[in-house]
Amino acid sequence: MTLRAPIPYLGAVRICSKETVLNTEINGNMLIGASSTPGSSGPFRAINPATGLALDPVFGGGAVADVERACMLAEQAFDIYREASLEQRAEFLEQIAQNILDLGPALIERAMLESGLPQARLEGERGRTVGQLRLFAKVVRDGRWLNATLDSALPERSPPRPDLRLRKIGLGPVAVFGASNFPLAFSVAGGDTASALAAGCPVVLKAHGAHPGTSELVGKAVQAAVASCGLPEGVFSMLNGDGRTIGQALVAHPAIKAVGFTGSRQGGVALMKTAAQRPEPIPVYAEMSSINPMFMLPDAMAQRASNIASGFVDSLTLGSGQFCTNPGLVFAVDGDALNKFCDTAAVALRAKAGSTMLTPGIHSAFNSGVERLSKAEHVSLLARGQAGANACSGQAALFVTDAATFLSNPALEEEIFGASSLIVKCKDVDQFKQIAEHLEGQLTATMFLTENDRDAAQALLPVLERKAGRILINGYPTGVEVSHAMVHGGPFPATSDSRSTSVGATAIDRFLRPVSYQDLPAYLLPAALQNNNPLGLWRVRDSELVQS
Amino acid sequence: MTLRAPIPYLGAVRICSKETVLNTEINGNMLIGASSTPGSSGPFRAINPATGLALDPVFGGGAVADVERACMLAEQAFDIYREASLEQRAEFLEQIAQNILDLGPALIERAMLESGLPQARLEGERGRTVGQLRLFAKVVRDGRWLNATLDSALPERSPPRPDLRLRKIGLGPVAVFGASNFPLAFSVAGGDTASALAAGCPVVLKAHGAHPGTSELVGKAVQAAVASCGLPEGVFSMLNGDGRTIGQALVAHPAIKAVGFTGSRQGGVALMKTAAQRPEPIPVYAEMSSINPMFMLPDAMAQRASNIASGFVDSLTLGSGQFCTNPGLVFAVDGDALNKFCDTAAVALRAKAGSTMLTPGIHSAFNSGVERLSKAEHVSLLARGQAGANACSGQAALFVTDAATFLSNPALEEEIFGASSLIVKCKDVDQFKQIAEHLEGQLTATMFLTENDRDAAQALLPVLERKAGRILINGYPTGVEVSHAMVHGGPFPATSDSRSTSVGATAIDRFLRPVSYQDLPAYLLPAALQNNNPLGLWRVRDSELVQS
Repeated sequence: MTLRAPIPYLGAVRICSKETVLNTEINGNMLIGASSTPGSSGPFRAINPATGLALDPVFGGGAVADVERACMLAEQAFDIYREASLEQRAEFLEQIAQNILDLGPALIERAMLESGLPQARLEGERGRTVGQLRLFAKVVRDGRWLNATLDSALPERSPPRPDLRLRKIGLGPVAVFGASNFPLAFSVAGGDTASALAAGCPVVLKAHGAHPGTSELVGKAVQAAVASCGLPEGVFSMLNGDGRTIGQALVAHPAIKAVGFTGSRQGGVALMKTAAQRPEPIPVYAEMSSINPMFMLPDAMAQRASNIASGFVDSLTLGSGQFCTNPGLVFAVDGDALNKFCDTAAVALRAKAGSTMLTPGIHSAFNSGVERLSKAEHVSLLARGQAGANACSGQAALFVTDAATFLSNPALEEEIFGASSLIVKCKDVDQFKQIAEHLEGQLTATMFLTENDRDAAQALLPVLERKAGRILINGYPTGVEVSHAMVHGGPFPATSDSRSTSVGATAIDRFLRPVSYQDLPAYLLPAALQNNNPLGLWRVRDSELVQS
Repeated sequence: MTLRAPIPYLGAVRICSKETVLNTEINGNMLIGASSTPGSSGPFRAINPATGLALDPVFGGGAVADVERACMLAEQAFDIYREASLEQRAEFLEQIAQNILDLGPALIERAMLESGLPQARLEGERGRTVGQLRLFAKVVRDGRWLNATLDSALPERSPPRPDLRLRKIGLGPVAVFGASNFPLAFSVAGGDTASALAAGCPVVLKAHGAHPGTSELVGKAVQAAVASCGLPEGVFSMLNGDGRTIGQALVAHPAIKAVGFTGSRQGGVALMKTAAQRPEPIPVYAEMSSINPMFMLPDAMAQRASNIASGFVDSLTLGSGQFCTNPGLVFAVDGDALNKFCDTAAVALRAKAGSTMLTPGIHSAFNSGVERLSKAEHVSLLARGQAGANACSGQAALFVTDAATFLSNPALEEEIFGASSLIVKCKDVDQFKQIAEHLEGQLTATMFLTENDRDAAQALLPVLERKAGRILINGYPTGVEVSHAMVHGGPFPATSDSRSTSVGATAIDRFLRPVSYQDLPAYLLPAALQNNNPLGLWRVRDSELVQS
């Protein structure tokens, strides 16, 4: 048995100690490598959206020198971290999960104050975050992401074929932008961070300004896991500051090799532009804008219009509509069933209490969007939800228009982030196909149907496959399972890169690239590619998939 | 057993008939779908680089209306072609291969006239082209590229987990640019076309102006296979014309969803820019610029400097150096062994006959590059090859400089396409690491070593992994095997997208994106995702890889 000789610099990596003591104080600092660093620019505080009041403490924003230092540490850490064993990397992810749980109620309390989200939702989101980290620990251990592939040498062939072996390695340090709407699951230790770390990439995180205290707590949980697992400090840093300065400087930094972002179309497109204009362009995974069309096929509507309408209103108003997969468009054939759908939806919506939106800025953008729709020609308001208890409450809105109006006014296809949706009355099911072709890229597309709608569904499905990352039947798009078969992605502008998903096991693929090794002596071969398969991986050997 | 109901529009797809009769006449037309279309712009002829004389017939270049028509046909073909069965798609690829062979000597003769490449090389390249098509037929049948993944529903869980299934589908019509240096293997039915067709994507090909007759012959072979396999005509079109007009119009066309290109850095970067600026940005796979550094470790040099030098000169001058993987940089520690290497290399190079380069333009760019190196400060000419028999012969060139000069002059790192290389004398092996860090992205990086060089090799390997797509030990980079473990890719500027390879089985992954299906009834599920696994695929089922 010939094992790869230990590479000297790997000696420092050790199995995680579980005796971490976590500090739940928030001091307003950034985390650069192992240090806690006060920011020198633009002091700011978190705002409690429910009260409009500023929260303690004061946070400091970063300067370009902080970006520089975080990126340099990440660059230094990369070669060491990416060769930590699969087991070490998996334990590190599990340690982050445990540390987040160990923060206890302090984390949930702070996140409630900063986001206006209720306790149960945030506890659920914490579970999702921890589950996501553990899923990636399993993914790392399974090692299928390595794509280990071996082609035997054929020395007798003319010309001789060399010994060729392929594995995937991390792209390099990744810049991750925390999202506002999932202060845990898509923020500091969320899906992008977990999948980048799983891929062997150090992460430099730009914390979202709406929940800096939550970010600091979770950042410390990651930082503590880096330390207790004996990993190089540059594996994780967290910066505060403005997206336009700190965010852009981060994406432009030569050490950064990929970007993960969830946010607005404008923000995502700006990062795509910066990344494309670098001397060395890099991939950007921006999850941006989706209105998640639902197509209501005739027999489904004839059978259960009211039932579908109730579920739709629940999905629309969940979490004040602040989900990327919120159903913003409903297409149905005009007639009695649709009238019934509209009546039920209107009644249900009027009963929905307003709930606090994430930030005053999001609330005001939502109101502007609703106002824009209210004033659009041939668009009428069907119903509003209740006004809500505070100045930042989102008041749900439901509009109706016809297909001709929808097709002629591109503004009706713009995402309104929050609980607003537009019902579009169509002539017939044939028009669904025309409308689907007209749509931009989406995270999800949904059909409600019965077996009697089969022909129409089969005609529509290929179009939806081209337009969306996930296709749902008789369900609502707002639940996004973290599993192996999930795609939370889709053609532009849903994301910047339809070849990827930001949720689920295959999110790790975003941060990998293949390397081929020709005629390497055994002592240079990575473990994944050694003859005796010491990692027990599934590998493609001479074109066949085998576990040897 | 519940099979997916046949979708009506698929009725037209039938198993390939083998009775094709191929026409080996060249009439100068473009191929748009099933038609042979005279071009209306800039009439041109192929030039025989060995004689400088124009060849018959006259070719017509395309206009924007031709781009429009080819793209429209491709768009119409996509939904049908991508749902052709794996077997149908594989037979189509095999039929293309057979049709190319059926062109017989006419193809080789025309390619010799247009490229100046010798018969044996072109016959070998035809074998590679046909082998590549057949490899992708096998890849298609194996179906691992589908990434079929199933997560069972968990109705009892709270919240219930839906049934989720994932497969990959093609991105859509792909624009492929024929390359000059492989008139068969990287041109009309080359690696990009074969992998895009394998992925289920129609191809609109922009033929390279240097070998239009070869392109027309191969194009007709593809067109005939489309027809005999009963596929929609838009699966393949071939346009002639200028890259700056027809090429750019093609990349900008909304129906095009990805681009495959092999050529210059300038050309590739221009396409990347166009693709990024589209209303819907699309991925570009451009293989552009690589100088393929070789690091000669001290014990290998002490043991066999002369032997390595001879092999190096053979690799450098193969095919007049017109390979993307041509070894353009040699790093070695200054001293006796390097002197011996230089002496042997100089003698070997002086004995190398000049051979015809592909085009007068390539020849002239090569001469300019050599002249630029000759005039660079602290760079000296070590040897030239022989001048060659005709005005387009490339005269090989070998230069020497020192590491300080190399590190301070970025121009020394620019690719000179053709048989030119630069030997860089280093202080010691530690300097190799500094130099490797300094390099841009490469297709390949090579180390010559013995077991006594182990420590230095282990220190250098992680840097080379970050810089190159393929790492070779004790070999020369110019052979690029078409197999499963090959990576012909690498960080920018070697390619525009280091996450991919343009050679080998996994090249298919470039043109795919995942789609997730939630709670689909059996009659809507694609065959790859049906419960009983009718295609016999390897699938990830509830997180485990199984063939069921």
